[in-house]
Amino acid sequence: MSDSAAVRIEAAAMQTLIETLGRIGEQPGGGIIRHVYSPAWVAARRQLETWMTDAGLQVREDAVGNLFGRIEGRSARTVLTGSHVDTVILGGRYDGALGVLSGLAALRALEPLGQPAKSLELVVLCEEEDSRFHANFWGTRGILGLIQPDELDGLTDLDGVRISEAMRQVGLDPERSREAVRDDLDAFVELHIEQGRILFDEGLPLGIVETITGLYRFKVSVEGRTDHAGTTPMDLRQDALQAAIRMAAEMTELVRAAGRPAVVTNGWWDVQPGAWNIVPGHVAFSVDLRHPNEATKQRLQREIRLRCEALANEMGVRVAFELASDILPCDMDTGVRAALAAAADGLGVRWMPMVSGAGHDSQVMATQVPTGMLFVPSVEGRSHSAAEYTSAEDAARGATVLAAALHRLAF
Amino acid sequence: MSDSAAVRIEAAAMQTLIETLGRIGEQPGGGIIRHVYSPAWVAARRQLETWMTDAGLQVREDAVGNLFGRIEGRSARTVLTGSHVDTVILGGRYDGALGVLSGLAALRALEPLGQPAKSLELVVLCEEEDSRFHANFWGTRGILGLIQPDELDGLTDLDGVRISEAMRQVGLDPERSREAVRDDLDAFVELHIEQGRILFDEGLPLGIVETITGLYRFKVSVEGRTDHAGTTPMDLRQDALQAAIRMAAEMTELVRAAGRPAVVTNGWWDVQPGAWNIVPGHVAFSVDLRHPNEATKQRLQREIRLRCEALANEMGVRVAFELASDILPCDMDTGVRAALAAAADGLGVRWMPMVSGAGHDSQVMATQVPTGMLFVPSVEGRSHSAAEYTSAEDAARGATVLAAALHRLAF
Repeated sequence: MSDSAAVRIEAAAMQTLIETLGRIGEQPGGGIIRHVYSPAWVAARRQLETWMTDAGLQVREDAVGNLFGRIEGRSARTVLTGSHVDTVILGGRYDGALGVLSGLAALRALEPLGQPAKSLELVVLCEEEDSRFHANFWGTRGILGLIQPDELDGLTDLDGVRISEAMRQVGLDPERSREAVRDDLDAFVELHIEQGRILFDEGLPLGIVETITGLYRFKVSVEGRTDHAGTTPMDLRQDALQAAIRMAAEMTELVRAAGRPAVVTNGWWDVQPGAWNIVPGHVAFSVDLRHPNEATKQRLQREIRLRCEALANEMGVRVAFELASDILPCDMDTGVRAALAAAADGLGVRWMPMVSGAGHDSQVMATQVPTGMLFVPSVEGRSHSAAEYTSAEDAARGATVLAAALHRLAF
Repeated sequence: MSDSAAVRIEAAAMQTLIETLGRIGEQPGGGIIRHVYSPAWVAARRQLETWMTDAGLQVREDAVGNLFGRIEGRSARTVLTGSHVDTVILGGRYDGALGVLSGLAALRALEPLGQPAKSLELVVLCEEEDSRFHANFWGTRGILGLIQPDELDGLTDLDGVRISEAMRQVGLDPERSREAVRDDLDAFVELHIEQGRILFDEGLPLGIVETITGLYRFKVSVEGRTDHAGTTPMDLRQDALQAAIRMAAEMTELVRAAGRPAVVTNGWWDVQPGAWNIVPGHVAFSVDLRHPNEATKQRLQREIRLRCEALANEMGVRVAFELASDILPCDMDTGVRAALAAAADGLGVRWMPMVSGAGHDSQVMATQVPTGMLFVPSVEGRSHSAAEYTSAEDAARGATVLAAALHRLAF
């Protein structure tokens, strides 16, 4: 164990990695577009392959396009780290990429320490963002055997290109995609930017994720009566908009009162007919409710529905709900968390336990593999934009903790 | 005066007129499209011309396409009645049309009574609805000399046709449009459906308009901060949507508390970026505020703005206002109103004084000509739809009061 004390990843090294990868797919006006199986994605993987080879890792690609760099251990059982290399449209340099680069820096630092007990491997996951195909977690799902056969010809991008065609264009054979499935994984550790502002506001450099939050999404549709905005007295209206905004305001109060980490968002609205001079007769809006405790999540969604129904009654309109998704919270593995905490404590890095409010590859990986996550600060919580930023010092500190944790898990 | 006691317009006669005109421009799935200068509009005018000629009226067309049927009086000074013949897209059989048909029925009934003191004239106004060109009140503005020369080539429909071209297609010379201007009008009386549900709910057959309401329209823009819906705690958000809906709810309460006839409507909303999983950073919505008392209207708009600003401060967002229109209330002429009331009372028709919450040709005409309006009930307040309905009995009762009032004004 004493060997790992020598592992220190420098800010300057992280800076170089972040800048180099961040230029691949960068657009003239700023922001990165690095969709799965696109030329920018191919270029990014080529760069990573070079770095991995230079670090003495055994490089290989799997059947869906995940890229691996391996240090063979005395056992074939594998401790895996990494994240995804694809981006949202006009994304930043850190989301996904920082997990890949921290893993690279960690394995590069650990490689000289001799053969580990377990094999240690970096994964560059091919897809997570759902931004070209509705392929969400494609790389992780490939590894876990969760890709459905009909997805290969069923998923198309906005140009009508099938994901199977896109795979062929980068030299992959979609018919062999089941070959990506692995059963040798003992642990998965993913470092990621927080994508929120809790660490930034707290002035802390590190979070260790306890749970990835549960998600409950539904559409609320309110039916009132379309009326003339000039000739219909206020007391005779069945205004779908006024009912809908009271529902949205009251569910927000209810979730706010539940306290952190409960969140609810009404991000999408459709107000019909949408004319200045017509009382809205139909309003639909989205509810995105998240809580890491399943019982609390379900209680909140029930209370929200009841409150909406009561308001509909009170205001003389009809309300209907349409479930969009109900995703269970996902606890991180106790053993992996303990290794992450011990590594941070051993390095004197202050950290806090956190809930991840966003979804990550880790929540899919955790369904089959003991999994843990590290968060590093996002300045001002910026995410999914060119404004994403994590200082090189915070990135290096995170990568150092990651390396120490991987040492604990593999050596 | 005693002659007018014989004037009774029958429900069956009104029914025939309404049904015949209502079929012109009717669409296969219901609803009428009778845009100004369209083939359906030409056909409707041809039918009206036939009816007017059959009734012994002197028929003529003016330079913008208004159609007139006249009973020449001992004086050339003219008492005018009528309304518009164009419709909104998929409009009903009553809006505008009923004023034209009531005027037709009234003049047809008055014609046999001998030569009136003043000339009596029916006008079929060519355009009011603003539904093909942004030509709002085109017919009335033609009569009053309020058409701006640059409108003739400047106003285009959705197909790019200029209003001057559309005029030529129906045989009108746009260069002669100033010839439509008249200075011989002593009074204008317009019968219209209420387009609201006050008479329907009160069970009254007639309204006499005191004032056409004032209108104050503005756009509210709220700037907050776009954030990740999962990773941003409720207490760290600057949610533009949550601020906007509180503004809308509070202005509604404020106007509701002011009591009838104050109304406010938030009919149009734009929520950006509009994704389920992003806290809205920008929201814009419309405010359509109406009150027949100018001072009250201005007080309400000021209070609404102050309330919005206070809420923006409280919720950490920015708010801006953009005025769209500020239209003065328009009082109907005392003399014309008295003639309408005396006619109704003389016939034993129960009526109530009303505010018109909608705009009408009368508000433009009133800027130069003593003007009054009669309202007949709209069943369930339906308007601007195929569901518009006024019973033949209510229509006939309204037309009878109109005839009696015209008799008082012209004989």
